[in-house]
Amino acid sequence: MNYIEGGVCAAKGFSANGLNCGINPDKNKNDLCMVYSDVLCNTAAVYTQNKVKGSPIVVTKRNLALSKGKSQAVIANSKNANTANADGEQKAMKMCELTAKVLGIKPEQVIVASTGVIGEVLPIEPIEKSIRVLADGLSYSGNAEAVNAIMTTDTVPKEVAVQFMLDGKLCTIGGMAKGSGMIHPNMATTLNFITTDVAITCEMLQKALSETVITTYNCLTVDGDTSTNDMISVMANGLADNKTIACENENYTVFKTALHDVLEKLTIMLAKDGEGATKLIECTCSGAKDLSTAITVAKSVVRSPLVKSGIFGSDANWGRILCAIGYAEADFDINKVNVDVSSSAGEIVACRNGLVVEFSEEKAKEILSQDEIYIHINLHDGDSSAKAWGCDLTYDYVRINGDYRS
Amino acid sequence: MNYIEGGVCAAKGFSANGLNCGINPDKNKNDLCMVYSDVLCNTAAVYTQNKVKGSPIVVTKRNLALSKGKSQAVIANSKNANTANADGEQKAMKMCELTAKVLGIKPEQVIVASTGVIGEVLPIEPIEKSIRVLADGLSYSGNAEAVNAIMTTDTVPKEVAVQFMLDGKLCTIGGMAKGSGMIHPNMATTLNFITTDVAITCEMLQKALSETVITTYNCLTVDGDTSTNDMISVMANGLADNKTIACENENYTVFKTALHDVLEKLTIMLAKDGEGATKLIECTCSGAKDLSTAITVAKSVVRSPLVKSGIFGSDANWGRILCAIGYAEADFDINKVNVDVSSSAGEIVACRNGLVVEFSEEKAKEILSQDEIYIHINLHDGDSSAKAWGCDLTYDYVRINGDYRS
Repeated sequence: MNYIEGGVCAAKGFSANGLNCGINPDKNKNDLCMVYSDVLCNTAAVYTQNKVKGSPIVVTKRNLALSKGKSQAVIANSKNANTANADGEQKAMKMCELTAKVLGIKPEQVIVASTGVIGEVLPIEPIEKSIRVLADGLSYSGNAEAVNAIMTTDTVPKEVAVQFMLDGKLCTIGGMAKGSGMIHPNMATTLNFITTDVAITCEMLQKALSETVITTYNCLTVDGDTSTNDMISVMANGLADNKTIACENENYTVFKTALHDVLEKLTIMLAKDGEGATKLIECTCSGAKDLSTAITVAKSVVRSPLVKSGIFGSDANWGRILCAIGYAEADFDINKVNVDVSSSAGEIVACRNGLVVEFSEEKAKEILSQDEIYIHINLHDGDSSAKAWGCDLTYDYVRINGDYRS
Repeated sequence: MNYIEGGVCAAKGFSANGLNCGINPDKNKNDLCMVYSDVLCNTAAVYTQNKVKGSPIVVTKRNLALSKGKSQAVIANSKNANTANADGEQKAMKMCELTAKVLGIKPEQVIVASTGVIGEVLPIEPIEKSIRVLADGLSYSGNAEAVNAIMTTDTVPKEVAVQFMLDGKLCTIGGMAKGSGMIHPNMATTLNFITTDVAITCEMLQKALSETVITTYNCLTVDGDTSTNDMISVMANGLADNKTIACENENYTVFKTALHDVLEKLTIMLAKDGEGATKLIECTCSGAKDLSTAITVAKSVVRSPLVKSGIFGSDANWGRILCAIGYAEADFDINKVNVDVSSSAGEIVACRNGLVVEFSEEKAKEILSQDEIYIHINLHDGDSSAKAWGCDLTYDYVRINGDYRS
C-alpha cells in the first residue's frame, strides 16, 4: 500500500473545486465544493442513524435509489446544515438540479451534503450564482479547494489516498473528511467523500463500505453526539480498468483492505482534530469474546468525559479507565481485566485483574504528557479485538461549543 | 408535605456525626461520618450497576443479606473510594467491625460507603483512631457534620427532610446526598443516605425505593460516567409509631410520594451542583407512548455535551436539542415533536413538528441567561411523561477533572 497526495482527486478521472459563495461571511474560507467524475460511478453510502435526518441525507438517499446507485458528482456546502427547516428538501433538490444542469448530468446522479448550523434557512441564491464558476474551475488537482469548503470547526484539512495493484493495474482510493464535534459511533460519522478508480459493482462496494465503517468511523467518538447530516459516500468509476469486482474474491479482499486503510487514517485524523483536542486517544480492547464486545468496551473508555478530561490534565487516574470499562454494556469478567497505557514516552502497567496497581507518578505523567495516548485493555476472554479513537476534553471544547453559531 | 431542617437527623431516633480523621489532609474538611439509629431499622438499598463495584458496595450488600435487611448505623468516608484495591473488602469489613464495636451492634448491621479516588489503598489507621470520638460525638443535630464528611467536589451540602401524617402520627423522611461528577443514569447515582421513622416492612421499603429511583436519581446525568461506589440506602426505624406498612395501601402511597419528593429534591440539588455547573437543566418529555420512552428522550437531551455547552454559552442552538432527541434510542415520529424552552425570564417556541421555528435571538438569549433552564418536549404520541436533570458543561468541569486527584 503506497500513500500518495491528491485526496479526493487522487484516483483517475476525478476533478474537484471549492470556493466561497457567500454562505460563510468569511471570504477567505470556502463554503461550497464540487467533486466530479469523468464517467458515471457505482456508488455506496452510509448515513446517520439519527431520527432527525438532514434534508441533504433524505435527498441523496432518494437520488441513489432512483439512479440505481449511479452518481457522477458531489455538491456540498458548509456553515448551514439545511436541516430541520420546512424548505430543506426543496433546497437540497435545488442544489442537485443546479449541479446537474452545469455538468450536463441528471439531478439524481448528484450526491448532496450540507454541514453547519441546524435549523437556519439555507440561502440558495449564493449557490445559484456561483455554481457555474464552481464547475468551470473543476480541476484534477482541485482537492485542496474542495476539502477547505467542508471544514467547519476543523483546524486542519483531512485527506488521504492510497495506491495498490489489481490485475496488474494501478488502482487508487482517495478521500476527504470533515469533523470535528458532534461525532459519535453508530453512524456514518461526519462528512466523508471517498473516490476510487477501481471497477467494482454497487453491491460489492456497499458491502465493503458497510463492513469497514464498523471498525473505523463507528469506533470514533468525540463527544457522544450523533449528528443529523453525516454521511460517507464512495464513488467508484472503474477507470483503473481492473476486472470488475463482483464477488468476494481475492481482489475484493485487497480493495477492502485499502478502503479500511483510507477510512482508518481519516478516522484518526478526525479524532485528533476533535473540537478543542490537544491529544489523540486510541484505545485497543483485545481478548474479547467477540468483536461487538471489543468495540463496546473500547468505545466506552474513549467516550468517558472523566477519562478524557483526566488525559487532558495528564492525570494518571487509572480508576476512571477501569470505571468506564465497568459500565460498558458488554459481558466479561472484570476480575480478569488488564490495562496498560503507553505513548512515545514509554509504557506503564495500570491495572491487573481488575485492580489498580502501584506505579510511578513521574513516569505516568511523562507518558500522559505526549500528544498520542494509547490505552490497551485485555479482557482475557477470547480472541477478538478492536480499536476506538477519541480525544481529550479541554477548555477549548467548551469555548467552541458555548458559542458555535456566532 | 412540610419541609423541615435536620437532614439525616430529622426523623426520630437518628443521630449523626462527622469529623476529619486524616484521610483528607485538609483539616477543615470532614472525611468520616457516622449515622446511628436508636433502634434497629428495616433497610432498603439500590447500588451502582457498574461491573467494577467498590468494595464498600460488596460489603454492604453482603451485610444486608446476612442481617436480613436490618441495619442500625452508617459509616462513610470521602477522599478515597476504597475500590479496585486488593485489600478493599478487608478494609471495608474492618470499617464495619470498628463501627459495630463502638456502638455495641453487629458488624452486619452497618452500612459502609466510601467515595473519592479509585485505586488508592485506603489507610485504615486514621479511621481506627477516630472511631470512638466519632461515636461519642453522635448528636440528634449532627447532620451538618455528617453531610460535610461525604462531600468531595460538591460546593454545597445536600440535605432535605419532609414531614407528613400517617394514622394521625407525625412521620419524617430526611436524607443527605453527595455529587457531583461521575453521575449518570441507570444506577443508584452518588452516595445517598435516607432515614425515616416510618414503620414499614423491608419488602415494601425496597419496593418504594426501587420504583422511586427510576424517575428521580436514574434521571440525573452530569457527565455520563456511571460510578463504581454509588448507593442509596433508606433506613426505617418505625419510631413514628404508625401501623406498619406491609402492603400497597393508602399509607404506602403517602409514604412513596414523600420519598419521591425527598429523592427528587436531592436529585435536583445534585444536578445543580454538577461539577463546574453554572446552570440547572431540567428536561420534561411528555406525550410519550410509555414511561421508558419519555425517560430515554429526556435523558438524551440533558446528557448531550453540545446541548450542555450551548446552554453554558446561552446559545439558542435549538438544532442541537432536536439532534439529541433524534438520536435517543426510542420509538417515536420526529415529525410530530414540539420543543419549548423556558426559564424565569419567559418561554419561547423552539421547534414545531420536528422543525426549528423562527425566534427572537434577543428573547432567547435572555431566557438562556438564567440559572435554571427548562426544556419541554412533546412527542404527541401518548400520555406518558418524565423529567431528567442535568447541568451545563463549563470550563470548570474540565479544570476540576483535569486534575482531580491532586
